[in-house]
Amino acid sequence: MPDPTSQLLTEALRVHSPTLPDGEAALGAALAQLTGRPGKLLRARLLLGAARSFGWDEGAAVKLAVAVEYFHVASLALDDLPCMDDALERRGQPCVHRQHGDATAILAALALINRAYFLVNTTFADRPLPLRHAAAACLDRCLGPVGLVGGQARDLAFARSARSAREIGRIALAKSAALFGLAVMLPALAGEPQPEESRLLRALCMYWGLVFQLVDDLRDVLSSSTVEGKTTGRDRALGRPNLALALGVAPARARLARLEGLAQQTLARLAPGGQGRWSCLAAFQVEVLAVLSTDLSRNAA
Amino acid sequence: MPDPTSQLLTEALRVHSPTLPDGEAALGAALAQLTGRPGKLLRARLLLGAARSFGWDEGAAVKLAVAVEYFHVASLALDDLPCMDDALERRGQPCVHRQHGDATAILAALALINRAYFLVNTTFADRPLPLRHAAAACLDRCLGPVGLVGGQARDLAFARSARSAREIGRIALAKSAALFGLAVMLPALAGEPQPEESRLLRALCMYWGLVFQLVDDLRDVLSSSTVEGKTTGRDRALGRPNLALALGVAPARARLARLEGLAQQTLARLAPGGQGRWSCLAAFQVEVLAVLSTDLSRNAA
Repeated sequence: MPDPTSQLLTEALRVHSPTLPDGEAALGAALAQLTGRPGKLLRARLLLGAARSFGWDEGAAVKLAVAVEYFHVASLALDDLPCMDDALERRGQPCVHRQHGDATAILAALALINRAYFLVNTTFADRPLPLRHAAAACLDRCLGPVGLVGGQARDLAFARSARSAREIGRIALAKSAALFGLAVMLPALAGEPQPEESRLLRALCMYWGLVFQLVDDLRDVLSSSTVEGKTTGRDRALGRPNLALALGVAPARARLARLEGLAQQTLARLAPGGQGRWSCLAAFQVEVLAVLSTDLSRNAA
Repeated sequence: MPDPTSQLLTEALRVHSPTLPDGEAALGAALAQLTGRPGKLLRARLLLGAARSFGWDEGAAVKLAVAVEYFHVASLALDDLPCMDDALERRGQPCVHRQHGDATAILAALALINRAYFLVNTTFADRPLPLRHAAAACLDRCLGPVGLVGGQARDLAFARSARSAREIGRIALAKSAALFGLAVMLPALAGEPQPEESRLLRALCMYWGLVFQLVDDLRDVLSSSTVEGKTTGRDRALGRPNLALALGVAPARARLARLEGLAQQTLARLAPGGQGRWSCLAAFQVEVLAVLSTDLSRNAA
């Protein structure tokens, strides 16, 4: 039985989905698949919690949460393409491109990205001018060549690089930290964070991005695709950046513990005693770490 | 020798391009290729003219023009992919995906789309609230499933459809009219068009989109790729929507003349005697029709 937040977000993902009255059938089916089977909704939940604590009204908070999830889902659909990760399964069923073709997968991703911008733009439209500029800059930075797009490009180029652990970390930062950054910074703009707070927020998203990617790396090495509902064990096969492969499982686990500690320390400075206006982030960290550690213990070697 | 407007826009396309300091090399090269070899810049010129006549300052006008060109160039790079039109050449050189791979072509297109949103968002940020909402809705409509993305989906599905002339028209409307619509409507929002003016503007962009697509269809049938600098003759091979194939060349030319007449009539109502606040559109039509008729006479059968 999904919790109320998941139910709320699942319904909102469907409601705000791009519609195509009398549109092309495969595109419609691809969009239904992408918006109809949510994953853990981590980024959307993070955004929703942050937006609520910064006083966004519920409608606006949900729209922003849906937008960040659409950006995320679009990036997954594109990453899964044969010319990228060539994945077979996602969320327990064949990837969109395997059901509807590569072209339709690309077009569905574009439709979601376009819709996500619409949701962010209409939500920020009635906010003060500096916030509107800050939101535009945040999207540009997190999604562009220094964020998500750039991270995926480095990811694909990794097999031809020196394959250093440092490069793996850079890729994780650009790819995974970008959407956590969007999920935290977009709603936090309303709180006009002080420079020191902004620095700590960016650091926290960076640690979370690295933790998240490292759990994904460990999972890829330790698990079977039957358990995961998505294609695993492919990082080695494709020469993809994976810290658990580069360092070994035990050192990777040690690094994971270190990163969790750094995230905890950063949180302690942002929300001492779990109190204050950033306390929603502390709650999120507890929730996320619980989910991730369940994932890993289920797949323990 | 390019005219001053082309020089201005060519330079602006380079200046506003997504930058990736210390970024991935192939992505950088793909972006340089996509932003460094402009075509006729029709949409950007149209937007620039319209923005100037509606009193946008020059910096804002250029940013919007660059944005619409980035959306256009991104859509070309994606349309050219093997899973879509499988084109070989564009603007006189091998397509981006043939030089840098499909994945890099997709990522470069995403980077341009992301940057285009940033340019539109920052340009509209200091405009009144209703205009900000109207701009967000305009992008959503023109680029999403009822616009560019939907048109491309129908285009790809065409070979499996009844291949009617009506469906070909629908596809042309969604694909070609969308970006003309964006180029006219985005700057025109500043003029707060009356409902009747909005209706005429949409109709004009519709006729232009149909004219433009029909010229492209005729060109694909009549020309060789040596003349065009892009892959031609592929519509028949791929079973793609092409009115000149569906109707024959002479009836297609007759339809082209009819559409030009309808565009002219619409313009005459918007800008009687070529005067008034929509007169820039009359000037654009003269310019475009001259370019297009040169294209066609060069390739005359």
